[in-house]
Amino acid sequence: MESIKDYIEKNSQRFLDELFGLIRIPSISSQSEHKPDMYKAAEYWKKILADAGCNTVEIFETETNPIVYGEKTFNPKLPTILVYGHYDVMPADPLEAWISPPFEPETRDGKIYARGADDDKGQSFMHAKAFEYMVKTGTLPCNVKFMFEGEEEIGSGALKKWCAEHKELLKSDVILVSDTGMISMETPSITTGLRGIACIEVEVTGPSRDLHSGLFGGAVANPVNILCKMIASLHDENRHVTVEGFYDDVEEIGVEERRELAKSPFSVDDYKNALNINQVWGEIGYTTNERTGIRPALDVNGIWGGYIGEGSKTVIPSKACAKISMRLVPNQDFAKISELFKNHFESLAPDYVSVKVTPHHGGQAYVSPLNSPEYKAAYRAVKETFGVAPIPFRSGGSIPVISTFEQTLGVKSLLLGFGLESDAIHSPNENYPLYNFYKGIETIPLFYKYFAEEFEKR
Amino acid sequence: MESIKDYIEKNSQRFLDELFGLIRIPSISSQSEHKPDMYKAAEYWKKILADAGCNTVEIFETETNPIVYGEKTFNPKLPTILVYGHYDVMPADPLEAWISPPFEPETRDGKIYARGADDDKGQSFMHAKAFEYMVKTGTLPCNVKFMFEGEEEIGSGALKKWCAEHKELLKSDVILVSDTGMISMETPSITTGLRGIACIEVEVTGPSRDLHSGLFGGAVANPVNILCKMIASLHDENRHVTVEGFYDDVEEIGVEERRELAKSPFSVDDYKNALNINQVWGEIGYTTNERTGIRPALDVNGIWGGYIGEGSKTVIPSKACAKISMRLVPNQDFAKISELFKNHFESLAPDYVSVKVTPHHGGQAYVSPLNSPEYKAAYRAVKETFGVAPIPFRSGGSIPVISTFEQTLGVKSLLLGFGLESDAIHSPNENYPLYNFYKGIETIPLFYKYFAEEFEKR
Repeated sequence: MESIKDYIEKNSQRFLDELFGLIRIPSISSQSEHKPDMYKAAEYWKKILADAGCNTVEIFETETNPIVYGEKTFNPKLPTILVYGHYDVMPADPLEAWISPPFEPETRDGKIYARGADDDKGQSFMHAKAFEYMVKTGTLPCNVKFMFEGEEEIGSGALKKWCAEHKELLKSDVILVSDTGMISMETPSITTGLRGIACIEVEVTGPSRDLHSGLFGGAVANPVNILCKMIASLHDENRHVTVEGFYDDVEEIGVEERRELAKSPFSVDDYKNALNINQVWGEIGYTTNERTGIRPALDVNGIWGGYIGEGSKTVIPSKACAKISMRLVPNQDFAKISELFKNHFESLAPDYVSVKVTPHHGGQAYVSPLNSPEYKAAYRAVKETFGVAPIPFRSGGSIPVISTFEQTLGVKSLLLGFGLESDAIHSPNENYPLYNFYKGIETIPLFYKYFAEEFEKR
Repeated sequence: MESIKDYIEKNSQRFLDELFGLIRIPSISSQSEHKPDMYKAAEYWKKILADAGCNTVEIFETETNPIVYGEKTFNPKLPTILVYGHYDVMPADPLEAWISPPFEPETRDGKIYARGADDDKGQSFMHAKAFEYMVKTGTLPCNVKFMFEGEEEIGSGALKKWCAEHKELLKSDVILVSDTGMISMETPSITTGLRGIACIEVEVTGPSRDLHSGLFGGAVANPVNILCKMIASLHDENRHVTVEGFYDDVEEIGVEERRELAKSPFSVDDYKNALNINQVWGEIGYTTNERTGIRPALDVNGIWGGYIGEGSKTVIPSKACAKISMRLVPNQDFAKISELFKNHFESLAPDYVSVKVTPHHGGQAYVSPLNSPEYKAAYRAVKETFGVAPIPFRSGGSIPVISTFEQTLGVKSLLLGFGLESDAIHSPNENYPLYNFYKGIETIPLFYKYFAEEFEKR
């Protein structure tokens, strides 16, 4: 029988060509002008899944972006793996910071450079190709279902509803997801936790029009200055978030577990060098990995107000706005946190201005157990292909839909990601090393094999 | 002899048509794409001045935007008035806030709506038409020189140099400027003071690229949050500016003079209603008019960083920037204040980020005496055409070049502006009432007449 390594070698260029076709579709879910691209990406996936060996492939319309579903179920006695991924991507700006255009994938220095190269087109594509191999070689040890959505980057609204309406269709024993990273190729890891998220937009309005800052400067409150003051007050001197009640539900992690977590290899110097910063920052009393792994955070993702073009325009702007997101840990409910934030932020507003707080999407945090058949299977598969035992790792990122899967479908997810910190997801020059791409395809069939075994033993 | 009122009535439509031609040229000096428009505006002015009766009109090239110069000198025994104005305008954004397009002038409800309708195309145009009348009727009582620049909104860099190189050409007894406002048409006023200005751009840089706010949020300092904190600290709880040394050179105004200033009619309710604000704001211990007239101020004119498009993009931005301007009072040197600001702002920056402070243009404050021939002439002219004695008034705005004129040419300026607060200069829907436009044209020949008389008496 042809080995997966041989199969990859023989088909490596075709795999890339097919992936590049998907990447070239600028399926940015947060920008309505890209609506037609969402359909193009869904159709593209439909063909990929059919060609790879699914019995059924279908595009489900939703009120927003379509969902691609495919399956190959052939033996009810075998466990069923439900593969989840997303075909939508983040906006690509600032465009001028890209070395090659974001939607014209290019291979440089052994990496694919493009928006979506990792997140999540590159990573989800590995599943299609690993599945193709197992079908072609008659080695598929489980039933498989695929579900790819187009709204992960904006909160998975349609998918959540669709899951609730298609529980029978989605019946499965584990949800397999490659949308996270590893510590490094030398220190492979399996993600066992994700933070939740609450996204908010705020708008501070002062005078009803932009004012001449000479004629009015010093006599009328400036909404930008006020917004800055309000944002500045969101962290105290210990860099705790000051939103009232923010930490009430935060799960306190015991000394023992913190000691375990501290075993992940981590060099603060390498971290600083990789980001080109002088100092790390964060909540007093916690390490860098704890700050992203087990503690919540609040960040401004964008701010704007007044004149931002070339040169100067001396105005007191009428409005100032910011996009703010909070990363949450288990037990913090995103809807409750959004409400707490709204109340707190509105209470900060002085009488000089009016404030509008609009909660956007959100999602709950997630933790996965280490004693499950899927974790054991992933551990064995990664250990075999990487030659090193993987480490469990809590990521600071969020995949809001993962906790929804558990609530709605009653199925746990296994986060088998092959990305790296240097992949710059959500950033300019996002990339995905070819090594990781092919290593992922090599690892996935082993996961299937060991999952069937572990599931049997359970 | 035909009266000025009759002349205006007969020619009112032509005056408007000619002004509209000038307004239609989008001569935005701060945006380099409008470079060709600067030349178009200069050529337009050249023709207007020649047609109005100048002996000589010339366009002087500079390293940046051209200067239009015209003169009619006919009797060395008569005093010489040098009229100054600018043909450049502020950017027009936010475009969506305009009711009619900014560069397609339109008359609605007795007002001209357009960028530059008041500042300064509308106001400077009055001088050309008043001059035209005096030439046509043989009533010109002074020699006249005109000088129109294209960089007032960006600091008058070229004009300052050009003045120093053309002292002989610009020899004059007073500089006459209409680039300011009146308290109201019922309470005419003459501007006797202008604030100085120092414009600065700041940039705060954290990590070398935008980071995923999930993977890094809480562990890496966010440049937007830091910039907000730095900006928030620029005012203390009494709304004093905290820049070290900022008030050192501020001239303290005595009780007596403050009592005089307080006589200008002012309704805080009307002020709040006009701006649609709940509360006025400003330095504790001063009235609204004092806050803009005799006290310095600091405002953010623009701020930007991170993702500002539709929806959300959860990043820790690499950079955050702001445009900040300070309005200054007599004795505060803008170059010194810019330096103090730079030092202060850099000292605020925590080690997590790097900060770049770039001073842009600036200009000194200006005060004009009430016992000069030009003030007396303006007083008499305004009293005659408005039927009410004008009030001296210190404006919060800045015309940086005015103090340069005094330093370089040794000539004082008279600020005879006919604008209103409701003209919304620098804002969307800038406008200039037709009443003010024609009233200005009516007043200017009287100023010439009384200036010749007062100059004789001096």
